[in-house]
Formats: sequence, structure tokens, C-alpha cells
Amino acid sequence: MEKKYTIGIDFGTLSGRAVLVDVANGHVEASAVHAYPHGVMDTALPDGTALPDSWALQHPADYLEVLDATLPQLLRSAGVTPEQIIGIGIDFTSSTVLPVNRSGTPLCFLDAYRQEPHAYVKLWKHHGAQRYAVKMEEIAKTRGEDWLGAYGGKVSSEWSLPKLWQVLEEAPQIYDATDDWIEAGDWIVWQLCGVRAQSLCGAGYKSFYRKRSGFPSEAYFAALDERLRHVVRDKLSAPVLPVCSRAGGLTEEAAARYGLLPGTAVAVSMIDAHACVPAAGIQRSGQVLAIIGTSACYLALDDRMNAIPGISGAVEDGILPGCWGYEAGQSCVGDHFAWFAEKFVPEAYAEEARSQRISIHEYLSNLAQKQAPGEHSLIALDWWNGNRSILMDSDLSGAIIGMTLHTKPEDIYRALVEATAYGARIILDNFEAHDLQVQSLFVSGGIIQKNPMIAQIYADVLNRPLHLVSAKEGGALGSAIIAAAAAGAAQGGYSTVTEAIEAMSAPSETVVLPCQAHVPVYERLFQIYTALHDHFGKHQKELMHTLKSLRTMREHL
Amino acid sequence: MEKKYTIGIDFGTLSGRAVLVDVANGHVEASAVHAYPHGVMDTALPDGTALPDSWALQHPADYLEVLDATLPQLLRSAGVTPEQIIGIGIDFTSSTVLPVNRSGTPLCFLDAYRQEPHAYVKLWKHHGAQRYAVKMEEIAKTRGEDWLGAYGGKVSSEWSLPKLWQVLEEAPQIYDATDDWIEAGDWIVWQLCGVRAQSLCGAGYKSFYRKRSGFPSEAYFAALDERLRHVVRDKLSAPVLPVCSRAGGLTEEAAARYGLLPGTAVAVSMIDAHACVPAAGIQRSGQVLAIIGTSACYLALDDRMNAIPGISGAVEDGILPGCWGYEAGQSCVGDHFAWFAEKFVPEAYAEEARSQRISIHEYLSNLAQKQAPGEHSLIALDWWNGNRSILMDSDLSGAIIGMTLHTKPEDIYRALVEATAYGARIILDNFEAHDLQVQSLFVSGGIIQKNPMIAQIYADVLNRPLHLVSAKEGGALGSAIIAAAAAGAAQGGYSTVTEAIEAMSAPSETVVLPCQAHVPVYERLFQIYTALHDHFGKHQKELMHTLKSLRTMREHL
Repeated sequence: MEKKYTIGIDFGTLSGRAVLVDVANGHVEASAVHAYPHGVMDTALPDGTALPDSWALQHPADYLEVLDATLPQLLRSAGVTPEQIIGIGIDFTSSTVLPVNRSGTPLCFLDAYRQEPHAYVKLWKHHGAQRYAVKMEEIAKTRGEDWLGAYGGKVSSEWSLPKLWQVLEEAPQIYDATDDWIEAGDWIVWQLCGVRAQSLCGAGYKSFYRKRSGFPSEAYFAALDERLRHVVRDKLSAPVLPVCSRAGGLTEEAAARYGLLPGTAVAVSMIDAHACVPAAGIQRSGQVLAIIGTSACYLALDDRMNAIPGISGAVEDGILPGCWGYEAGQSCVGDHFAWFAEKFVPEAYAEEARSQRISIHEYLSNLAQKQAPGEHSLIALDWWNGNRSILMDSDLSGAIIGMTLHTKPEDIYRALVEATAYGARIILDNFEAHDLQVQSLFVSGGIIQKNPMIAQIYADVLNRPLHLVSAKEGGALGSAIIAAAAAGAAQGGYSTVTEAIEAMSAPSETVVLPCQAHVPVYERLFQIYTALHDHFGKHQKELMHTLKSLRTMREHL
Repeated sequence: MEKKYTIGIDFGTLSGRAVLVDVANGHVEASAVHAYPHGVMDTALPDGTALPDSWALQHPADYLEVLDATLPQLLRSAGVTPEQIIGIGIDFTSSTVLPVNRSGTPLCFLDAYRQEPHAYVKLWKHHGAQRYAVKMEEIAKTRGEDWLGAYGGKVSSEWSLPKLWQVLEEAPQIYDATDDWIEAGDWIVWQLCGVRAQSLCGAGYKSFYRKRSGFPSEAYFAALDERLRHVVRDKLSAPVLPVCSRAGGLTEEAAARYGLLPGTAVAVSMIDAHACVPAAGIQRSGQVLAIIGTSACYLALDDRMNAIPGISGAVEDGILPGCWGYEAGQSCVGDHFAWFAEKFVPEAYAEEARSQRISIHEYLSNLAQKQAPGEHSLIALDWWNGNRSILMDSDLSGAIIGMTLHTKPEDIYRALVEATAYGARIILDNFEAHDLQVQSLFVSGGIIQKNPMIAQIYADVLNRPLHLVSAKEGGALGSAIIAAAAAGAAQGGYSTVTEAIEAMSAPSETVVLPCQAHVPVYERLFQIYTALHDHFGKHQKELMHTLKSLRTMREHL
């Protein structure tokens, strides 16, 4: 029988990557990447229109270019025929959202709105909606909205609805012209198969949609602003479809454009991190995936609803059908190490790293890994970008304690790595304290995969084996797995996502075990971390809030 | 009438400096410096004998070389005759101490002991006697020794007696061969005038000598170690002479060697910092001198005894005759800035500073001084070298709070400067809280003199005018002033030190005023500093103690 393939397309922050995957065994046969020509627009629109601080936009034409550039190339390079492709899956950063009209055309494509920043895609890390997020949270608390608990009691400015409210307030004409306020992943699905829909994954984690009760009530939205009373009916009315299902078949037009067959299954989109879960072979309660990059995301499955405080989302059927998906986040991980390596490493180290032809991270790690745990006498709080873990407080900031005149750059580098590991432990301990057992921990992301010192520190601090996920393109592979389930067995795919995962996921081949001699030292250090965590994050959080507020002192002088 | 001169010789950590000063007006006519050939011996003796960590020795031959190299040169370069020189004053780092035999010969000059580290000078920053200092303090507390309160309730390993106890324990043959355990300044005076004596300044601040009650009791020393019962009788029996007085006249031999007249007055020695007080023109209650270098020293005069906790010494007649001298210390000031500039400044900054032909400190200051107070959102605790101010705890360590991904090197540099200013404020506030009024604050030391940003931050944080002391060679000038008093009016000097100070001191010509717009911001930041200070230094000090103790974890693994 002729081999069957699916395509997974992972839309990241700076580029899109498509992979062609063998349905029988999950082998990645070909891969193609295309960078977004406009990248992240955080200072100006293409025509030069300036953007406020804290904004981050994207251009939806870039996403279409990814499809044009990668899909035909994939088939060519792998030498496969359109008939062999049985499905396409999409995962996307989130909440990356845009306003479109009835026909699905992004408003920024229209001449009338080309110069209007609010007509473009708001990228996940657009933080211009902060004050709307704050108000949404306050009012939800005041009203006792029951959905709020599933989101750690917090509304993030990175989510969809604060961004939409920002449009209403700051560009009402764009709000009025918007027929759908749509996650970019859902918009791509629409472009491929002509089906206007919302993924339960995006709606559940980023728009407060609950499988059993739907979106928040009209009364809640009216309490925010009377003009938002009918926002769900007017802007979020596309059907919400379950994850790992078929959204529709490839249109004639799309099929011709990309060299595929009409009717090829297109899966409902997934959030990029969440698509990594099936790629890692995770499908059972007790399995947790840590995706560690510039920031970190912890995704867990359980067959029960657990009331866990301090997480960023608990969504029924939100990751895989038939179970609850839990998400928790750490807002700054690789960014810590990059901050230090870029700004605080002396000339002599930079020169030495160059002469050894290694990166500064590798150089610092080589020095730091010679140390015994605790030897540097330092402890840090990993809050350089606030805390989006159990404290959920973006006005917290970082701390390093214990410096002496002997403290060296590699000491602080190691302390920052350890701080992120302590932060990870807080997340996992919080899961377990609320009856979500962590039986196995899978870890993906280059930072830990490529750096044995970091992997060992995490294993030691967490005192658990780390199962390193071998898939390098987790999101794209996960999308391809979901596409095989969406295509169904009759088309050469699978009748359930469980079967697709079992056949196609990339098993963990490397396990990093904790070093038992290190565990008690890190236990002591973690107690100190916890004391500092509670001091600066709970009892004396006003201290850090005041410090952060002083940033604006210049205006008062 | 022919002009009269005195010579002041300031023995520092790395070199000695002699100045020739006009007795009529304090004008420095000539200056000569000589670096110690052996510098600080902290890894090995000249013959290669290795030294333990935390040791710091010197070679007394170096001090004699300073006399040989500088004294004849001074007279030559100024074109003055020996008859015009009426006195010599000596100031020295302290407690810099050495064992000598009955004739005053350092034991390390003797062939039998040349290879014995304990036969050499223990420099002030020799920290090898830490455990003896701890025991001395514990036993003094247990016994309720009344002198301990005058030293902030603490015994420092930098002082004389812990160093002597270390000799007894670790090299009893050296202890036995020692006839005098002598401050290096007193030893130089002995070499010049043949008078074996101890200055009340050194004995008072570094050996617990009290003008009214003498050294600690034999019972106390016996409680330390029975072999120490008669330590005062056996090793510290030289007469204690008052400050600003004449120790003796230059010997025939010394006069011939240095080209001076026999009988020229040699003043009782002073601690180097304390000699800066007369140089700055300070002679009244309410005047405080801050000497800000790698560490900082705060010296205050008052005509009363005040029970001030957390100071490093309160000595009657210890600085100037007729009043109490108070000393408080900050263990790390310039060392903070150097630590950061040497280890944590990125290549791009180093390159830019080079291309602008300025120091990295100047480059960082240029960037940092553009900021408004509080703009960097940081606060630091200035304890990189422990705290020798009111907390008196060498096991405390540093902290920086408030970092974000936007934090830049110049932000941390500025925060470290501010931290030392907050530390200074703690000292001055503590003086005032215990009835020692701070009416005028004089500041000396290149760090503040040369850096307008640092001076302004200190003025703003302290909310007081800073009187910058113009004397560049404060210790040497102070010694020359004291020499004029020691010589007496009959010889062309002065009958009192007050008259000498009035005529010869270097008045402050620059006053830095606080910027009133900055004061309230720094008031808020100082409140935060105080909260952190009390948290980490009092309520939760075990946290930092534990961190410091982890430094030795490697040994346990």
C-alpha cells in the first residue's frame, strides 16, 4: 500500500514551519520554514505609522506566504504525490487574534483600514490591552463569575477578549467593521477549507469558553461596557469545534494553490504549545509536559476537574478530547539566561568564548557546572518578567541574594538557572497539592535538550527523572498527528487521536535522573527560595510593586 | 624668620607617602611616594612558603625603605634645610601588627624565623584570625566585659588581639619569642626616636585599651586561654602615650640616615583614617568625617561619652585629646563598584569606554546619571563584604531586588552606588538616634571627589550638604599637623593641636547640596532599603547565614 502522509504547520512568533510526516510511524520526511517578512511589528506599521509602547502586531499576509512557500516545497522535496497527503493540521501562537469581515478578509487588507493599527493581528505578546485585562478581572471578581477560577482568578492582557475591548475603546470603527474576532489559527483553517469555526482549544484557554456553559454571559460583558453586551453574538459567533476533529476539506481553490487534493482533511487548529502534547506521546492522567523556551509552559492531563489555584487555564477537552487539560506558566526562563549573557558578561569571557568557538551560554555553563550545588551561596527569584505561576502578579520583579566580592558571572548564571528550576518546582508542587498527580515529567525545548548542566539542575531540584522529548518540531509534529486523527481511518489515518499518538508520537529516549547527593542541598535551597517567594510575592509584595511603580518617577520630577 | 616645616608620613596598604608641609599655613611643599616592594603577601612569603586563604602579610623592611626613599627626596626637592624641619608625624593602616624582640627587631628579620609566616606583619585585612575573634567576642559577652559595648559588642578579626592569639595557637615559638606585639605605626616611631610606646589611638581602637581602665583584665585573657593570662604584661607592656603628643626626638642614627637633625620631634602615631580628621579641619562636636574608599569609615567627635550600639569604636581621647572619638564603618563601598565594573560590564561597554578614552566607571556613571532617582526600579543591600555597621555581621551578603528584562548594567551600577549611600544614612541616623548630633558632614576620598554623580546621590540620600575635603593626602597632612603640635610652640610649631589644625588644615571649598526634587523619592527608597535591611539583617538573618554556609557544601559531597 502506498504510504500516507499528513502535514503539520506550526506558526511561531517569527516564522512558520511545515513538516511532512509518515502516518504509519510519525517519521518526519521533510520540513520547510519560512520567516514572516514583517516579523513582529512593535514600533511601526509597514507604512511607518508609529505604534505605542508595549504593542506587538503581525501582518496576516505573512501567514499566507508561509503556506505558499512551504507546502509545494514539502511535496517536491519528499517526492510524494498529492494523493498521499491525507490531512493538514495547524497550530499557532495564541492568543494571536485579528478582526476579519464576513468573507474572512482581514480588515488590514482593506484600503480603508491599511493605516489603522487596530486592523492588524494582535500578537500573543501585545501588551497594549493591560488596562482592559485588569478591568475584566476586577469586574469578574466583583460579580463572582464562576469561570474565573478556571483561569487562576486572573485575566491576562495576552488573551483575546481584553484585546478586543481595546479595539472597541481605541478604534470603534474597526470594532464595528469586525464580523469575526478570530484566532489566527482558526483564520488559517478558514482559508484552507472555507469553514468558519473556532477551536475549543483557543476559545477555552484564551476566551473563557467552557464546554458546558459557553462564553461568559451577556450580563458580564454588559458590566464591562454596554456596547459589549452582544459581543459573543456579534463577534464570536463562529461554531466552537472540538480539538483533534476535522474542521472541513481543502477547498478547490486552496488545493490548486498549494498542489494538494480538494477535500483533504483540515483539522481544527490547536495552540502551539498544546499541540506538543500529542507529539510527546502524552495522553494519560499524570503525564505532564514542560515546554521550556524563553518562557515555560506546563501542560497536564487529568480525567477529573481539579480546582487548582494559580494556573492559567483548566479546560475540559481543551488539549485532548475526553480529559481536562491544565496549563500553568512561568513567564521568564530562557529570557533570564539571555538577559544575563547579553548584558552582564565581561569582555574577557566574550573573548575566551570566541577563541573556544563556543557560545557564551556554553562558556558560562562549562564554568558553572564545575560547581557543587550551593557553592556559589546565591539564590534568585525568577521574576524578571513578573510571575504568571501561582502568584499571578506581573508587577513582581527579580531578586538575587547572597553576593560577595568573590561572586563571579558564572555563579549568577547558575543561580538564574536554579531559580527557574525552583519556579518549576513551585508549579509541580502546586499541581500535586491540588490532587493533580505528576507521575512523569516530559521536557521539550532546546534550552534543556542542548545543555546538560541545565537538565541536571532541573532533575536535581525537582527530584524527578526528566524525560527529554526527542521531537525537535513538537508543534508541527503534533499538528500532523492531529491531522491523521482528523482524516480518519477510512482515509488511511486513525479513528481516534489515541491511536494516532501511539503510532506517530516521538518517544522520549533520554531520561535525566536526579543526582541523589545533590538533592538534599537543593532541598535546603528550595526552602530558602520558598521563604523569599512568600516574602516578596505574598507578605511584602507591595515592596516590589512600589519599586516597579518608581519606574515612572521621571514624569513626576 | 625662616619658614618651618613638618613631615607627615602616611603608610597605606600598598605604598607609603611622605609630605613636607609649611607649618604656617599647611601648604604641601613637596610629596614623595614609595611602593612597598613586597606589596601585600597573600599567597606566599618571599621564599615561596605558601600562605593559607584569607591571610594578608607585609614585610617590615618595606616600611623602612619608604623612609629611605622619601625623606631625603623631600628635602632635596623642596630645597629646605634640616634645621627647618621641626617634627615628623606617622600614620599607618591598622591594625597592622608585628612581633618584635626586645631591641625592636621584627622576628622575620631573624634567620631563625624568616620562613615562618607568623613572624611577619599581619596587615589590617589579614582575616586568618576570624575564629579567634569569634571566641574573644563570645567569651567577652559571657563574662559581661564592660569594654565590649564601646566596640559595638563585636570583636573584629582585623584587630590586634585576635591576630596575636592566632600566633599563640598556630606558632607558639613565635609567640614566645615576641617581646612586643606592636602596631606598625608605633614600630616606625620606635625606629625613628628609639622610644618604645603605644599610641592611645591604636591601642584604644584596636586593642580595647581604655584611658581610664587600661587593657582588659588578666581574668578575661585567662578565660580565653590560660597562656594569655599575662599577655598585657608580657607582650603589650610599652607605655600608652596620648595622641598629638611628642613620643621622642629623632635619634642620632636616624637623623644621619635621613638627613635630618637629631632631636627633631617625632609624634605619637595615628591610625591613617583618624589622622584625616585634623587634616579636614575637624575639631568640634557635631563634625563628622566620612572617608570613602574601597570601604568607608565614619569618624565623629563629641565631648561626651554616648552609648552608641553598632559602632566599631568609642575611645576617649582616641582621635583628638579632650574629646571622645567615635568610629563606624561600612565594609564595602568602592569595592562594590569595582566588583561590578570588573566582572559584569559587557564587551560593548568596555569597547565604547576605550574609544571615548574614559574609565569604565566614568562610562557607567555617564549613563547612570541621566536617570531620575527610582527610574531603574532597583534596590540593593550593600553587604557584599558583610556588614560592619549597626548589624555588625560578617556573614551577611549582598542583594539586588527589582530586576526586569529591561535592567541594564548602568542601572545596577547606580543601584550599588545608592545602596552604599543608604548604608551611610543608617550610620548617621544611628549616631543621631543616640544623641551624637551630625551638624556637618565632611567627605574625603577620591571616589566621591572625582565622581559628581556619586556625590549628588549621597547628598540626596542623606539629605545633607556634603563638605568635600580638599586635602588629597589627608592622612599625611594630618600627620604633619600633629607633628607641629608635637614639636610645640617653642620649636616653631603650636602649643595645642587646635591651633595647629586652625592654621594648617585644608578647608572644604566645595559643598554639594541635596537636590530637593530628589529627596522625597530617595526617602521612599530608603524606607524600602530599611525594610530589606531589617528583614535580611535582623528578622531573617539566618537565611543569609545559611546561604553563606553553603559555600562549603562541596566538602560534604
